[in-house]
Amino acid sequence: MPWLERGIGMEAAVVKEGDWVLIYFSEKKSYVVRVEQGRQFHTTKGSIDLGSLVGVEYGSRLETNVGEEFYVTRPLIVDRLSVLKRFTQVIYPKDLAYLLLGSGVGPGSRVVEAGTGTGYLTSILAFYVRPSGRVFTYEAREDFYKMAVENFERIGLLPYITVRKRNIKEGIKERNVDAVFLDMPDPWEVFGEAYSVLNHGGTINVFTPTTGQMSRSIEGLKRAGFKRVEAAEIMYRRYKASPRELRPENVGIWHTGYIIRGQKL
Amino acid sequence: MPWLERGIGMEAAVVKEGDWVLIYFSEKKSYVVRVEQGRQFHTTKGSIDLGSLVGVEYGSRLETNVGEEFYVTRPLIVDRLSVLKRFTQVIYPKDLAYLLLGSGVGPGSRVVEAGTGTGYLTSILAFYVRPSGRVFTYEAREDFYKMAVENFERIGLLPYITVRKRNIKEGIKERNVDAVFLDMPDPWEVFGEAYSVLNHGGTINVFTPTTGQMSRSIEGLKRAGFKRVEAAEIMYRRYKASPRELRPENVGIWHTGYIIRGQKL
Amino acid sequence: MPWLERGIGMEAAVVKEGDWVLIYFSEKKSYVVRVEQGRQFHTTKGSIDLGSLVGVEYGSRLETNVGEEFYVTRPLIVDRLSVLKRFTQVIYPKDLAYLLLGSGVGPGSRVVEAGTGTGYLTSILAFYVRPSGRVFTYEAREDFYKMAVENFERIGLLPYITVRKRNIKEGIKERNVDAVFLDMPDPWEVFGEAYSVLNHGGTINVFTPTTGQMSRSIEGLKRAGFKRVEAAEIMYRRYKASPRELRPENVGIWHTGYIIRGQKL
Amino acid sequence: MPWLERGIGMEAAVVKEGDWVLIYFSEKKSYVVRVEQGRQFHTTKGSIDLGSLVGVEYGSRLETNVGEEFYVTRPLIVDRLSVLKRFTQVIYPKDLAYLLLGSGVGPGSRVVEAGTGTGYLTSILAFYVRPSGRVFTYEAREDFYKMAVENFERIGLLPYITVRKRNIKEGIKERNVDAVFLDMPDPWEVFGEAYSVLNHGGTINVFTPTTGQMSRSIEGLKRAGFKRVEAAEIMYRRYKASPRELRPENVGIWHTGYIIRGQKL
Repeated sequence: MPWLERGIGMEAAVVKEGDWVLIYFSEKKSYVVRVEQGRQFHTTKGSIDLGSLVGVEYGSRLETNVGEEFYVTRPLIVDRLSVLKRFTQVIYPKDLAYLLLGSGVGPGSRVVEAGTGTGYLTSILAFYVRPSGRVFTYEAREDFYKMAVENFERIGLLPYITVRKRNIKEGIKERNVDAVFLDMPDPWEVFGEAYSVLNHGGTINVFTPTTGQMSRSIEGLKRAGFKRVEAAEIMYRRYKASPRELRPENVGIWHTGYIIRGQKL
Repeated sequence: MPWLERGIGMEAAVVKEGDWVLIYFSEKKSYVVRVEQGRQFHTTKGSIDLGSLVGVEYGSRLETNVGEEFYVTRPLIVDRLSVLKRFTQVIYPKDLAYLLLGSGVGPGSRVVEAGTGTGYLTSILAFYVRPSGRVFTYEAREDFYKMAVENFERIGLLPYITVRKRNIKEGIKERNVDAVFLDMPDPWEVFGEAYSVLNHGGTINVFTPTTGQMSRSIEGLKRAGFKRVEAAEIMYRRYKASPRELRPENVGIWHTGYIIRGQKL
Repeated sequence: MPWLERGIGMEAAVVKEGDWVLIYFSEKKSYVVRVEQGRQFHTTKGSIDLGSLVGVEYGSRLETNVGEEFYVTRPLIVDRLSVLKRFTQVIYPKDLAYLLLGSGVGPGSRVVEAGTGTGYLTSILAFYVRPSGRVFTYEAREDFYKMAVENFERIGLLPYITVRKRNIKEGIKERNVDAVFLDMPDPWEVFGEAYSVLNHGGTINVFTPTTGQMSRSIEGLKRAGFKRVEAAEIMYRRYKASPRELRPENVGIWHTGYIIRGQKL
Repeated sequence: MPWLERGIGMEAAVVKEGDWVLIYFSEKKSYVVRVEQGRQFHTTKGSIDLGSLVGVEYGSRLETNVGEEFYVTRPLIVDRLSVLKRFTQVIYPKDLAYLLLGSGVGPGSRVVEAGTGTGYLTSILAFYVRPSGRVFTYEAREDFYKMAVENFERIGLLPYITVRKRNIKEGIKERNVDAVFLDMPDPWEVFGEAYSVLNHGGTINVFTPTTGQMSRSIEGLKRAGFKRVEAAEIMYRRYKASPRELRPENVGIWHTGYIIRGQKL
């Protein structure tokens, strides 16, 4: 898929059938849609014939059927995630970013993850292990599994992902793993197995919402033999982007989860 | 360089001449060193003959000349950064991670950055645009420039970086750029030029320490034509990783800088 | 007013005509009302004949006309504030508390404040300067002024407050002032006047929402001759009070305003 | 003691024997000392004959024996606390302020507190219950008890405090209590007793450092019959008070303790 060739970038100047594009009306109103012949996209500012976008240059300013202006541009990876169908709580970019960097994962890594859920974390990991790495994600529930496969296909990341319909507690099939990510209610039940499949130097990365789970995770990681155990939380504070009244937004997210990491030495 | 082939991972089981390894004594004492024949590494727990590590399996438990135990393992990307020579303030992992993810940059991206400084941000970007992307970094000062080239060579990322000895205010040489990163006192002087070299959909990412600079950056980005201008700060709060007295660390970093981002639509 | 004799406390065991009481149904549903003969109080859990509460012991468990149980108890000072009629943004307890303690104000202090607004800050100051101190509050708008007087009367704090219908920029009438509090868009216009009416050792305390106003306030305080100028923000993070799933609330207040303080030496 | 008559304020214009004064050299250097005949106060900027300050006007600019200028002014309540002898961790102003306001305590309240420790919390409570209220503080250790009595005497708040040399777990002697404050490792052992001595509408206020203690406190308060149980933490973020480089301080306090409150209904 072309948008993946250079992360956000492409030199190709025109929209093609099947591209995912960002439709931008204003700072508060923008959409990510797939360009398909014969499909109409309806907004509160009028509708757009998606087929008519084919051949248009990226960055063009166009109009809806009622004359409202919009831009067509390329979506960022975080925009792309917004089209995933959600059926579980998603992990926020602040946490995804720190989980990724802290884990040591990068292009080429072999990663195991559970549970798949909506596939946010899976997608971010797949995006960054490209082109030669791979993510193995475990999901026991049939309905979640199907949805996830569909999501990865739509977003174009399926070539880098193996989705296993299996409860990770029943065993990890991979060996020579560089990192394991666990976003599940009882991650400690998998620590021993994770330790055995990790490469030396590999990391285990846990994301969990309550202080009790953080406490049990720290204890469990140490007992399983992991070293350099660290626990932290990441906070994101958005500012009102207006120079004349610059200040943090009044209301925002104060808590999502704790990030606990260990390393196999 | 082998450690880069899979991010953190390598299936290769033994230490080779020239590898960077993590020497781990305890949670509070660990070092990143390069394995070289004939070199001694001296610590408060005794010295290690680095040449003797060649051929040792990763994950081995060894002893110093005075009998203190240590592990030999692979360093994470954030560990690797710790060996860079510092001559300017570094950017913290919490900010590096969010700058990266928010920018949309990934494997394959073409990125421009200024100023190079110690090269922390350059290194992270280079690590994640591998293997087919490239980072172009601008540094006007002769001494910083030399140090940066040396740093990138030591850490193994130079193949993915072009270091330009030039003040970015005198012009950006690249075209078709996916993202621009600015960590400099007066980033607004480069916004117009950055806009002209960015691809449609590309992002500009500013990191700046004071509220006044944040205010001028927001204003400047909007004036230069950027859309989706966002300003935020990321906070990292570390916990004492001890189940019996689990609580945040008492003292920590409360401020590093603000992250301001815009997109060319 | 009896409830003020001991802060929250009263030994008197029974509810009297005119008392303000807290009607508590559950953790999420409670009300502050005044006990008056012949008045009905209607809730989603049925209605209460307020006159019938006279003579009831504090702490009693009673029932509404449809049999829903509730407790009658004494409101805290922060509960009392909840009955003030609001027409401007209120200051939150986290900020009220720090403004109070940092200012040095306590029982006996003479305090000047502007603008009155809803009267939250005025009420807290009046509560804590009792019984021998006094708060002088300035409000230029006729409608705000009237509402404020009515509010202070209802809450029982009027005996400790002088409400001046006057723009504080036209001059402060008091001398020998222990502290000045300013919650207004352009506090710097009053700094010179405030300096001249303050006692040596007295403090000026500014509450302001934007970084630009914080910056101008710091500059203005220093120019007006104030020393020990400090700027800070207070954050309040509430936890889900459930041992089994203990964690911070997911969404909350991230910003209200900055507190800037100076002292006349 | 005159400084207490009006909180921070006094109309009296001159320094008297026995007054506590603030000696201010600069934003970073100031001291709180007691004016006594025949005593020298030595600083890195020269020495001051404390007796010579008697009769000097508050706000005067004077010189040390080596010609360094300083101001003499009145200390705030938080300055006054700085002279207490410390032998345990102190509670920070951010927490003291919120504990006070949230508890409902004000002039006239009857308060029970344990353990006394350095007496920071005791002093703040005593300052605000003046002139007709009283704080009863429990301290089992002989050495802490003696130090506390001495501290309260020095700071002038002893008339409002009863210091009991007794472990609060052996029982609370007071009845008709408006609020109980507990800063001790195992506060839950006192919840039942606290409930029985509190007035209806009175509050219990717990300050504790770890998540485990927060969890047990919430559980214990509910079991003891308290309602409106709330848990929170207060964060204080100080800014560099310089308009040209306005930003939060880089390093600061990230954690002190959690505040848990319940009310007897």
